[in-house]
Parts: sequence; structure tokens; C-alpha cells
Amino acid sequence: MSNIYDHAYNLEKAIRESSEFQRLKTAYEAVMNDPESKQMFESFRDTQLNLQEKQMQGLEITEEEVEKARNVVELVQGNETIAKLMEEEQQLNVIIGDISSIITKPLEEVYGFSQED
Amino acid sequence: MSNIYDHAYNLEKAIRESSEFQRLKTAYEAVMNDPESKQMFESFRDTQLNLQEKQMQGLEITEEEVEKARNVVELVQGNETIAKLMEEEQQLNVIIGDISSIITKPLEEVYGFSQED
Ligand SMILES: [Ca+2]
Ligand SMILES: [Ca+2]
Repeated sequence: MSNIYDHAYNLEKAIRESSEFQRLKTAYEAVMNDPESKQMFESFRDTQLNLQEKQMQGLEITEEEVEKARNVVELVQGNETIAKLMEEEQQLNVIIGDISSIITKPLEEVYGFSQED
Repeated sequence: MSNIYDHAYNLEKAIRESSEFQRLKTAYEAVMNDPESKQMFESFRDTQLNLQEKQMQGLEITEEEVEKARNVVELVQGNETIAKLMEEEQQLNVIIGDISSIITKPLEEVYGFSQED
């Protein structure tokens, strides 16, 4: 069992030292160091978190809210500093998704077959 | 980057070889090899998946469904073979949760601070 944790910490270190993670960090700092971008990004996050929260609580999302979210996304996409951050986020999300698939494979193999029948 | 994947596969192997995983597998096979337990377990899973699906779609869950789910849980808890499986699942879930916390720490450190201010 300690072995599992050793490997998890090794993986964490590898993520932390990866060029993808370093680029994400740099991109995030660039956003945070530009007041206009920072404010825009935080408004974007707030909007997203609000919608997620509502969805998780099973509350209805109004057309107005969808429209507002769309506007914030458009605004954000026009900001190069934030667009760069989102690109880096996406690349790291792919890696995190891959890792998640890899490490849950043993569990899937246990449950996989009989769930299909 | 290949380094990240190497470490992810090492972690997968460590999970697969852990006594916790081996015990889960054994417990699952015991349930699957007992027709009564198998049927009960699958009915339990179906009920759970149904409720999850409804929740994710933001559909309302009726009192009747909650009551039905509660009955299935009680039934299942009275079955020693399934109770053993659920115990092993819980132990592995703790490990998977720990792993998830460990490997998402770098990301949290990037985003963590300025989300609080
Ligand atoms: Ca600008
Ligand atoms: Ca029995």
C-alpha cells in the first residue's frame, strides 16, 4: 500500500516538472499580472461556477443566464492572455484525463464485464 | 511528458498488485459466483445508476424512489458476500481519493490562492 502512495507522489512530481505544467503556471501568472485580464478571467470563472452549482443542484438555468455565459466566453476568447491560459489548461486536462483512465483501468476490469450483461 | 505516462503506468501496476485491489477482486468474484448475491447486487447497481442518471439530468427523484433505494440498500447490507465487497470497495475508494488529491495538488497550487481572494 505504501507502494501505491510512493508511485502517486512520483507521478505528482512528474506532473509538476512537466513542460505542460510549467507552461500552465506561466500562462496563469500572466493573466494574474494583468489587471484587465485578471478581472475578466475571474468574472468568467464566477459565471462558470455559478452555472455548475445550479446544474449540480438540479436547478433550471435560464436562457438569460446561458446568454450571459456565452457573452463572457466571447469576451474571454478575445483576450490573448486568457486564450493562452485556456489552451494550456486544455492540454493539461487531456493529460489528467489520460492519467485517470490509466489508473482506473484495474477497477474497470473488475467491474467491466458483468456490467454489460 | 512521456515521463508522466511512465509514472501513471507504474502507479496503475502498483494498484493492480496491491493487496487492497486483490481483495476487491476476490470479493467481487465471490458475489458473481453466488447467483442470489449476484442478482441482488445487480439490482442494487441498477437502482443506484438510475438515481445518479436522474440526478445528473436534473430530474426530480420521487419519495417512492428514495424509499425503494433504501430497501435495496438494506437488503444488500444483509448479504454478507455483498457487504464484504462493499467494504473492500470503500477501502479502495479511499486510496483512489488520496491519489486524486495527490496528483491534483500541483493544479490546486496554481489556482488555489487567487480563487480565495
Ligand atoms: Ca487588453
Ligand atoms: Ca444467501
